[in-house]
Parts: sequence; structure tokens; C-alpha cells
Amino acid sequence: MYTYRLTLCYDGSRYNGWQKQGNTKNTIQEKLETLLTRLLDEEIEVAGSGRTDAGVHAMGQVVSFHSAQHHDPAWLLGEMRRYLPDDIGAMELTVASPRFHARLNATGKTYVYRIWNSDAPNVFERKYMYTMPDTLDISAMEAAAAHLIGTHNFMSFCANKRMKKSTVRTITDLRIDRLGHEVRFTVTGDGFLYNMVRILVGTLLEVGTGKRAADSIPALLDAADRSQAGYLVPPHGLRLEAVYYD
Amino acid sequence: MYTYRLTLCYDGSRYNGWQKQGNTKNTIQEKLETLLTRLLDEEIEVAGSGRTDAGVHAMGQVVSFHSAQHHDPAWLLGEMRRYLPDDIGAMELTVASPRFHARLNATGKTYVYRIWNSDAPNVFERKYMYTMPDTLDISAMEAAAAHLIGTHNFMSFCANKRMKKSTVRTITDLRIDRLGHEVRFTVTGDGFLYNMVRILVGTLLEVGTGKRAADSIPALLDAADRSQAGYLVPPHGLRLEAVYYD
Repeated sequence: MYTYRLTLCYDGSRYNGWQKQGNTKNTIQEKLETLLTRLLDEEIEVAGSGRTDAGVHAMGQVVSFHSAQHHDPAWLLGEMRRYLPDDIGAMELTVASPRFHARLNATGKTYVYRIWNSDAPNVFERKYMYTMPDTLDISAMEAAAAHLIGTHNFMSFCANKRMKKSTVRTITDLRIDRLGHEVRFTVTGDGFLYNMVRILVGTLLEVGTGKRAADSIPALLDAADRSQAGYLVPPHGLRLEAVYYD
Repeated sequence: MYTYRLTLCYDGSRYNGWQKQGNTKNTIQEKLETLLTRLLDEEIEVAGSGRTDAGVHAMGQVVSFHSAQHHDPAWLLGEMRRYLPDDIGAMELTVASPRFHARLNATGKTYVYRIWNSDAPNVFERKYMYTMPDTLDISAMEAAAAHLIGTHNFMSFCANKRMKKSTVRTITDLRIDRLGHEVRFTVTGDGFLYNMVRILVGTLLEVGTGKRAADSIPALLDAADRSQAGYLVPPHGLRLEAVYYD
């Protein structure tokens, strides 16, 4: 048995997210499995580093899968590029160690959330940024972000109310950059709860617009209550930037 | 009568070009005129600086129109942003001098043509770049471009075989830049013939891939024969960048 590691880019706009599940049609996982099963003439199941929600994009989603046969990675990468739809891009393919698993071995991830912070429309990147023309206080958001860095119980930032596993995660970096009219959040951590990045960004935007104080974050973490955190920003501003392995 | 000057951005992907004509539905001009006529409660006709073909984009198309009434430009700009589809962006609106006409007064234009020069797909900008993974000799293309700068008869680069007006134009600048995997052509001139930029780029790409010599350009200009020039590159790599007025 051979194990392959694939790095994938996708524009999530027209997909129901990464994960194939029940009756959910048109997922990225399904597109990939259907193609690989056909190309390799063998039932292929793929594991992503994690699911991305409907409408969320990826620059560096990592995927693993097994095949009974050995395939030349350059050949298989070429075939994938030829047959995948133009909003899913196969970037790299390597033969991995047999025990490699994209989700179980992931040690960290970086997500990017992009805000188009202007009254003037951005027609070319409209599908990749959340338009929010309000004046944003970057320093206040940075002060709030500093309270989120580190190991915390992120229950307040988890959309899954019935989460039974640990909601403790470690955020190692949370940067906020202004790039012209764009405000970009870049968050890196060992793992993220359901909707955690989008709730974090929504909460920081409430700080940036003066609706919430930067120093209210520690109490919000302590509350462990989703209803006290900020709003869920829309999916199209979010992309999974990179996944890390040891 | 009041004259207005509007700067427009658009993603041309889903439109049949700028110009409303005969039975051609779904043009940018038509969208704009329909909206302005409704907003101003008066039949509005707009003049663009020039037509862009189906699938061609614009960063800075300039449009003029008249209205019997005076309208606050900030109000009208806000209304246009509110009601235009998200792939057409109203960037600026000013009251112009009564004689201003976007096409007749234009003294020059800049077009940008973008090539994605890699085997690896670019899913996020796929609608704005022409993918061409071949090795490109930038120096050879620059040498060829040098022969195109200046005042020439560009008949060989004109798709309209029955062109009765002058085919003499002046190209003041033609730059070729490599930006990572992107190769970008930026051409500025006093005016462009039908398909001229796309035929110019197709011809330069033939030089870049070694199919045509850089020093063959003067003879090609002299031939005044479209069939001797290069191929027509697809529209989606092209955008009208800026229009100039005195």
C-alpha cells in the first residue's frame, strides 16, 4: 500500500464545503474522490487536514490517500490538473510515509480572513473578501487579539453547542495587517473549533468598530458562552492558508 | 443639461462586452443605462471611452452621460453602488464640463494583459489571466515590443478586414513584466484598433516561445496583413486599465 500527500488550492464559492456527508452533494472531497477513483481504477478515499465550510477557500489544504499501486506522482499530478474543475487546483503531490494522515498528523494550521474595508467596490476580489466599509481601529483589535494568543478554553468561540471534546486550543499567532483598503487577519494555532476563526474575526471587528472593549476578551474567554462572543462573519472572506506537520 | 463622468470597474466574465447593439443582450452598457434611467426617472444614454469585447475586464473604463437635472454626485454614486450587480463597480462620479464626452475626448488608454505562466493552476485569478505554461523569453519579447513602440500602421494587428478609417496609431509604451509566475503586458497608446491588443500579445507570445523572430516585426508592420500576425489571445486576460484626457 502506498500513501500519497496532496496539496490543494480551491475557490470554495460554488461548493458545499470540503466534506462529503450524507446527502450533501457537490463537495470538494467528493470531486476529488470521484476523479481519483476513476484515474486509478480503484476505490479511493481521501482524508483532508480538516473540513472547510461551504464557501470557504483554501490555498494549502493537505489531503492524504492510499492506493494499492505505486503511481508516478508527476503523472498523477498532471492527470489531476487535466481533469479537476478550474476552481480546484492540485499544487503538489508526493509519496508520503505509509503512516501519514493529513488530519491526524497535522500539528497546526494558518487561516487568513480578508476584509475589503472601503466604500468603493472591489469587483475582482469580491468572492474572496468580506466587504465592510466601517472605520476599523486596528490598534484596538491588536490589543484584543493579544488576549487570544496562547492556550485558552475557546468554548465562547465554538458554534457547536454540544461539543463534548476539549475546547482548549493554542493560538500561536494572530496578526492584523492593513494592506491598502484590505484588512487581513492571519491566525495560526494547533487546531480550531467549529466556526472558531469566523467568530474570532467577528468579535475582533466588534472591537474595531467600538462596540466591544479590547480588554473585555479575558472575561469572554472565561464565560465559555458562545452567545457572548461576536457575530459569525461570512465564509467567503476565509481561506485555509497552510497546514503544518512535524 | 448636466454632464457626468463616471469611472467604472467590471469583471467582464459574464457579459457580452460593453456595447449594447441590436439583439445582443447582457452588455455592461445596457445594465448601466437601465439603472440610470430608473434612478433618474429620465431616459439616459451613456457613452463609454470605447467598447470592450465579451469577457474583457475594466479597471478604469470612463463613461459620460447627460441629464436634464442636477444630481448630487455622492448621492448618485451611492445609489449606483447599491443597485449595480457585484461584478460592476462604480468607482468615481463627478459633474464634468458640458462638452465632455468619454469617447471623443479620450487622448489615450492603457490596457493590461495578464498571463499565468506556470503549470500549477491559479484558481483564484483564473478568470483574469490567460494560462500559458510555456517558457517565455522576456528579453526577446522586449526586443520585439521595441519595434512596436511609436507611430505605425497597425493594419496587421486589426481584426476588422474592412476597416476604412486610418489604421495608424501611436503606442507610447509597451512594458513586459514578470511578477512571480505572472507575465504582464502593459500597453499605452493614443487608441487601439479592433482586437489590436490581443493580436499584439499573441504575436509577442510567439516571439517569446521562439516561433517568430523579434526582428521580424518591422516587416510584419509593413505587410499590413492580419494573416501574417500572431494569434488572438483569449479575452479574459485583458483589462482596460485607464483612459486619459487632457
